[in-house]
Amino acid sequence: MSSARSADPANPAGAINALVFDAYGTLFNVHSVVARCDELFPGKGQALSALWRSRQLEYSWLRSLMGRYVNFDQVTADALKYACDALQLSCSEAQRVALAQGYRTLQPFDDARDALSALAAMSSAPRLAILSNGAPDMLNALVAHNRMERAIPDVMSVDSVGVFKPDPRVYQLAVDRLKLPAAQIGFVSSNGWDAAGARAFGFKVLWINRGGAPVEELGVRPDRELKSLRELPGLLAGM
Amino acid sequence: MSSARSADPANPAGAINALVFDAYGTLFNVHSVVARCDELFPGKGQALSALWRSRQLEYSWLRSLMGRYVNFDQVTADALKYACDALQLSCSEAQRVALAQGYRTLQPFDDARDALSALAAMSSAPRLAILSNGAPDMLNALVAHNRMERAIPDVMSVDSVGVFKPDPRVYQLAVDRLKLPAAQIGFVSSNGWDAAGARAFGFKVLWINRGGAPVEELGVRPDRELKSLRELPGLLAGM
Repeated sequence: MSSARSADPANPAGAINALVFDAYGTLFNVHSVVARCDELFPGKGQALSALWRSRQLEYSWLRSLMGRYVNFDQVTADALKYACDALQLSCSEAQRVALAQGYRTLQPFDDARDALSALAAMSSAPRLAILSNGAPDMLNALVAHNRMERAIPDVMSVDSVGVFKPDPRVYQLAVDRLKLPAAQIGFVSSNGWDAAGARAFGFKVLWINRGGAPVEELGVRPDRELKSLRELPGLLAGM
Repeated sequence: MSSARSADPANPAGAINALVFDAYGTLFNVHSVVARCDELFPGKGQALSALWRSRQLEYSWLRSLMGRYVNFDQVTADALKYACDALQLSCSEAQRVALAQGYRTLQPFDDARDALSALAAMSSAPRLAILSNGAPDMLNALVAHNRMERAIPDVMSVDSVGVFKPDPRVYQLAVDRLKLPAAQIGFVSSNGWDAAGARAFGFKVLWINRGGAPVEELGVRPDRELKSLRELPGLLAGM
């Protein structure tokens, strides 16, 4: 895999002093909302959740390019409106608000819980942070709901730069907050496009590929590919 | 529908002195390549074409945001590589090159041919142009293959600004080339996100919604929604 811009090409995952996690899809399962969708629209929960999520991402990219940023709460609500319309599901505004509230109580993946516990127990534990498209209050509610405030002290939102990932200004937020060079920051994401954006920016990128997807063809490769977040503490300890 | 930035809100489609068409999906059917895909991978042509197209668009947005523009030939080739890998279709590089060549000989939609003929026959025919993500040689080959050089004299590619739609710098190309204010340019696209980007920029937008899709929830609405390009000459003549 490519290691351009690494200080030491022979050890592309070396010298990581902080780990910055993506939130949605990496630590937290966005499809936790399927059950709620399925209660409202029996048998349609999975299709609704999938289209909602794909439009949510597309709208974040499109609004960034259009220079028409609105926060991720709004993007999430807009994407849900489109998804209901496209699937011809009659969903009142109150029902949509209730569904979107589900983003504040998403469940962590099992491997995320295990990895965070193991990282906290390491003798020289790296500093842990979140860098997410989510609006600050969405993220704070989500971290508080899952009692992760102590485990992950730095929670950074794109909202302060008014553009979404993978714009490099977003990744720069972590460099500024953590006061570390990009090459000393390990960026952890299960979203292939986010991994590519972070690698292009200059982070050491650990791509969590739970589903065995092909790598995204965006001209850069993650430094390491992991099947599960459970591999992360061992990878760091061995360095 | 919204008519913000229109000179005359009561007549949002008025005073159109030029029509600028999107190419892929609007004049030309990108799924013309399904038959070729199906020859190589029987029964998989439609799935391959759909995933290829969706990744092609995503990569154009992501590379624009990453500041890593490559031309649409490369984006198209990259997206095809990903789609073949994801669908576990064994496709040699030579086969992929041959498939991607299909973008140079796409077929126009029937309603596109009819509309262009009718527009050319109008007594005060508007100037016609194309503004596309395609690389210049892709577009020129496509227009020449379909003998449209005379009907559409201005063919503009995003390549000269090094970013893809819906970045406003792309739409500005048409204003500069046609030397008309945005509000006097009718922008015609079947891609809802492109229609939104063009409307946010300030064009009069005619959204060709052949499939009865819901409007994209991107904070702006097209000025007019048409079921077919065949409605276009009548709409202009009635103004």
